[in-house]
Amino acid sequence: MQFPTLSDIQQAHKIIKPFIHRTPVLTSENLNQITGADIYFKCENFQKAGAFKIRGACNAVLSLTQDEASAGVTTHSSGNHAAAIALAAKWRGIKAFVVMPENAPQVKKDAVAGYGAEIIFCEPTLQAREKTLDDVVKRTGAGFIHPYNNPKVIAGQGTSVLELLEETGELDIVVTPVGGGGLLSGTCLTTSALFPGTSVIAAEPSQADDAFRSLKAGKIIPVVNPDTIADGLRTSLGSLTFPIIQKYVSEIITVDEQDIIIAMQLTWERLKIIIEPSSAVPLAAVLANPDKFRNKRTGIILTGGNVDLSKIPWL
Amino acid sequence: MQFPTLSDIQQAHKIIKPFIHRTPVLTSENLNQITGADIYFKCENFQKAGAFKIRGACNAVLSLTQDEASAGVTTHSSGNHAAAIALAAKWRGIKAFVVMPENAPQVKKDAVAGYGAEIIFCEPTLQAREKTLDDVVKRTGAGFIHPYNNPKVIAGQGTSVLELLEETGELDIVVTPVGGGGLLSGTCLTTSALFPGTSVIAAEPSQADDAFRSLKAGKIIPVVNPDTIADGLRTSLGSLTFPIIQKYVSEIITVDEQDIIIAMQLTWERLKIIIEPSSAVPLAAVLANPDKFRNKRTGIILTGGNVDLSKIPWL
Repeated sequence: MQFPTLSDIQQAHKIIKPFIHRTPVLTSENLNQITGADIYFKCENFQKAGAFKIRGACNAVLSLTQDEASAGVTTHSSGNHAAAIALAAKWRGIKAFVVMPENAPQVKKDAVAGYGAEIIFCEPTLQAREKTLDDVVKRTGAGFIHPYNNPKVIAGQGTSVLELLEETGELDIVVTPVGGGGLLSGTCLTTSALFPGTSVIAAEPSQADDAFRSLKAGKIIPVVNPDTIADGLRTSLGSLTFPIIQKYVSEIITVDEQDIIIAMQLTWERLKIIIEPSSAVPLAAVLANPDKFRNKRTGIILTGGNVDLSKIPWL
Repeated sequence: MQFPTLSDIQQAHKIIKPFIHRTPVLTSENLNQITGADIYFKCENFQKAGAFKIRGACNAVLSLTQDEASAGVTTHSSGNHAAAIALAAKWRGIKAFVVMPENAPQVKKDAVAGYGAEIIFCEPTLQAREKTLDDVVKRTGAGFIHPYNNPKVIAGQGTSVLELLEETGELDIVVTPVGGGGLLSGTCLTTSALFPGTSVIAAEPSQADDAFRSLKAGKIIPVVNPDTIADGLRTSLGSLTFPIIQKYVSEIITVDEQDIIIAMQLTWERLKIIIEPSSAVPLAAVLANPDKFRNKRTGIILTGGNVDLSKIPWL
């Protein structure tokens, strides 16, 4: 298979740039002291629709031909990709049909509805998602934009670290969370092309550790109904993302639920920004492995900020 | 009395610039839609020590002569000025003695201690603060830096809107919260000097409405043990801040506790940033007065982000 190239990612950046925010890169002396690392946080929580997902969704939706786009687009997603597709479709002026698990956070359901998409709810299992999605495609003829197993989506997600590296220059390590692997594989492709010496490390909840186990086994081992607070990371690797991750990722670090919550609270407290649980997984990995990150120039992608503020996990 | 001039404020900016953060100015299409205004948020919640207070404290501490500074500095404060004095004293390499009310948020007590200051606790009344402060001065000989009734502090606080206006150009309205009036009076002096046509509006909790009542009465009417969630705004106007406010402030808008909490939650949710209750008071004023702010280019100073994350007010 041909992986998306740096030039695909740069082309994606050109397409989406007028629509998305250039998100800031924050540092914190205090968090550097605590971790012993030198961390650059790329703040996709400030991104349009509150997460990096708009990058891939926007690139995919705007890259469709007029004919492909005419019946609208559809997807299934635990939330942030759903909102991103809804918003990108709104920008393009086409319909969006979004399949969401019933247990998605209310704030994410509201966002999707707010962008004018039609929501179709399903049971929170991969099987139910796919079945419901099939029904929608049959009914509407909308084009399916997979949340991660799509080269345009992967190229779009690769633009976040492109902006990060533009600002920081070469880093020792980049850490992203891994769910389906769209952000991680896009990050790998950009980083390896620009700075082959930079390690890309993935961070994953131990309660949804399919990527960790898949990499070890050398084949995709899907996770079945994982129970993690990191609601953006409950999906399993795809056939496009897995080989990229296999080729480029140095290591996958798994972290416990309690450590995710601690890292999330620490980020709120010290950086004064709202991040969702999935975003805290990389910092949890750094905190749990001080030797690995000591004095390393480390990029962390804070993936999103869509939290249900009526459910604070440490309270 | 001679008010601090624009040149005093510019001089303060020169002194403190190497020490403080240039905080970002954020906008939100979503909050503009909700309010009908065109709002520029100056994010002092990202400032060193988590609040604008470091501006005045740093200017005051660094402006002391060697002789004045030799026995250290002291102050009383509900929290943010305390942390600011502690940090500024640390930068200068002198001792800080900080009188704090026992009911100050734990996160603020921790910050003051973390910067190496000595904390002296007192009852949460103005009388107790002043008595305890007197004792400290007698015991240590430290120089008292009042949290707001001090020309160097006022000049320092005036640098926040200086940076805001540098970025936005002329605004129709600037809104700040008012407690003791240091930020408000500094904001008035800068704004009226640069853009005489810009209104400065103050926002105040109705449960600590001494500034509102003082302006109406034409004399300072101190508030007695006010009970508001906006812990940074429980103090009363001072003899230096009152005449500046009398001369330059267009209006003081008072807001209810529930509206402060709603504005705070809205800011967390939409801007994805952590602000403390005092910071939410201006947005609460805008939300309650849509006609006054409709289509107005409005600057809001988000004063700080030091929240005790174990006590979320809407939960």
